[in-house]
Amino acid sequence: MGLGCPAVTTRPICVIGLGLIGGSLARAAVTAGRTVWASTASETTAAAARADGYDVAASTEQALERAKAEDALVVLAVPLTAVPDVLRQVRAVAPECRLTDVVSVQAAMRDAVRAHAPEARYVGGHPMAGTEESGWAAGSAGLFQGANWVVAADDGLDPEVWADVAELAWDCGGRVVPAGAEDHDAAVARISHLPHLLAAVLATVAAEDGGELALTLAAGSFADATRVMDTRPELVLAMCEGNRSGLLPAVDDALGRLGAARGSLASTGGLAATINAGHRARELWHQAKSAPETTVPRHTPLADLRALAHTGHVLTGWTPS
Amino acid sequence: MGLGCPAVTTRPICVIGLGLIGGSLARAAVTAGRTVWASTASETTAAAARADGYDVAASTEQALERAKAEDALVVLAVPLTAVPDVLRQVRAVAPECRLTDVVSVQAAMRDAVRAHAPEARYVGGHPMAGTEESGWAAGSAGLFQGANWVVAADDGLDPEVWADVAELAWDCGGRVVPAGAEDHDAAVARISHLPHLLAAVLATVAAEDGGELALTLAAGSFADATRVMDTRPELVLAMCEGNRSGLLPAVDDALGRLGAARGSLASTGGLAATINAGHRARELWHQAKSAPETTVPRHTPLADLRALAHTGHVLTGWTPS
Repeated sequence: MGLGCPAVTTRPICVIGLGLIGGSLARAAVTAGRTVWASTASETTAAAARADGYDVAASTEQALERAKAEDALVVLAVPLTAVPDVLRQVRAVAPECRLTDVVSVQAAMRDAVRAHAPEARYVGGHPMAGTEESGWAAGSAGLFQGANWVVAADDGLDPEVWADVAELAWDCGGRVVPAGAEDHDAAVARISHLPHLLAAVLATVAAEDGGELALTLAAGSFADATRVMDTRPELVLAMCEGNRSGLLPAVDDALGRLGAARGSLASTGGLAATINAGHRARELWHQAKSAPETTVPRHTPLADLRALAHTGHVLTGWTPS
Repeated sequence: MGLGCPAVTTRPICVIGLGLIGGSLARAAVTAGRTVWASTASETTAAAARADGYDVAASTEQALERAKAEDALVVLAVPLTAVPDVLRQVRAVAPECRLTDVVSVQAAMRDAVRAHAPEARYVGGHPMAGTEESGWAAGSAGLFQGANWVVAADDGLDPEVWADVAELAWDCGGRVVPAGAEDHDAAVARISHLPHLLAAVLATVAAEDGGELALTLAAGSFADATRVMDTRPELVLAMCEGNRSGLLPAVDDALGRLGAARGSLASTGGLAATINAGHRARELWHQAKSAPETTVPRHTPLADLRALAHTGHVLTGWTPS
């Protein structure tokens, strides 16, 4: 159930993809009392999910047919590279379905939907949760508990489907952050995709370029800073390459700041500006964890919701009417 | 007690500084059965340690006088910036004492000892353990359990004191890595100081440059990659600035690899070379955690010990004679 004012809805959920995120979402939605079915391209995953008691259709086509018949919310939970194929199936089987995703890159997802399933009633989503693990077995119903869940809030989106996606997020234990697709992509480039890229650079400079002694000595700070490099590389690539326009300015900022630190270390020997700024930024983040929670009336215009997100608010449910 | 062949020695330990590392070392050495006393510049810390049952001298001078009288091993556990002052006291009170440190930068420590306490029988040390916390209250006797502990192994060091330091490491639960000072500093620049610098850059680019939305969305990958920015900035500065010559080439490698990734993303849109290299490097590190453990005869030449470390071996005790 949601944290604030729990959504009360019986809309069924059709999950396409049963990896870490899709598999956790299926579990969380079932726990919240929703009717849930799924499909997966992996026979092994299908067998494992069925053995755990979940309803896995024989094919994505069958899952989508049922979604059309029962007016379900379809959740795309496949890597970005697999999205066009699934969208073509959506267009063929359930062209006007209610559609969201948990793929992580919003502008690229929106453009793919426009290209491959233009009639779908699509509202993008992105739960800020995950681990370095992947696959059905790594999932859990509690993965989204207390997590922020971006729900795309660009003008012109279908308000009924927007409510469907928000209610799914709340039912999974998340808090809703309404954000425009480009704003979302610029933000996640900095807080997720850049950390992955820096982790790759650091792992290589330390463990590959540093030789046997560096490998032996690497512990706490190295271990945490490079943890995400345990993730399957193709998943990291799909998400970083899929957000090229968001990631480039973030990388440029990092190069600029690292270059400035290098110059200062080489010339004066001092790193105070860099380290003090990093310490302050981390404090800002600690403070932001107590983001003000709020509820909103069910038909609040999306522009007003975006304004709330820009001032750091997170939504926990509908204001009782 | 040590993990391999436990050291049997009764040499007393005099710890100067009772922060996270010094305080943990005092606890671990007491747990191992050693006689331990300490000094600290902080009256608050002295009171807290005494309340926990530890023997804290009235002054560093008194602690060092007792070290001279009882031929103790003196352990410097103060920030690098405080080292010269303490070394001048060593020279005044116990000029020829057995001396080691846990300060983290080896070449700078060695040079400081040469400058300020040239008669001390100094062998540098660096346990690879720590957290983002600091202070006496954050310490624990188990902090060094299974941790690698660098003991300087440059030619010409006093073999008796070398054995003292190795035995202290083993008694605290650590495994000894014999390495030359410059090799040590080059390695820790990559696996500890560069991670701190990149964490500072990332925290700033994400949480400061990214605005309110980025702050709200920052979670797993950001949190882990910037954890060390919770550390007190002056401790991070002392260690990074104190290893300037080791850190500069590591920063240059990071700038080169990040710049190459930037170029590839901008031109072809691809990041496979960067991400795959990072993933491979992290796998190398996982494999290195099962470093071969070995024992050595008590009077093995330091050059032979260094050769063992260069092939990834860690020492767990003396080979029984």
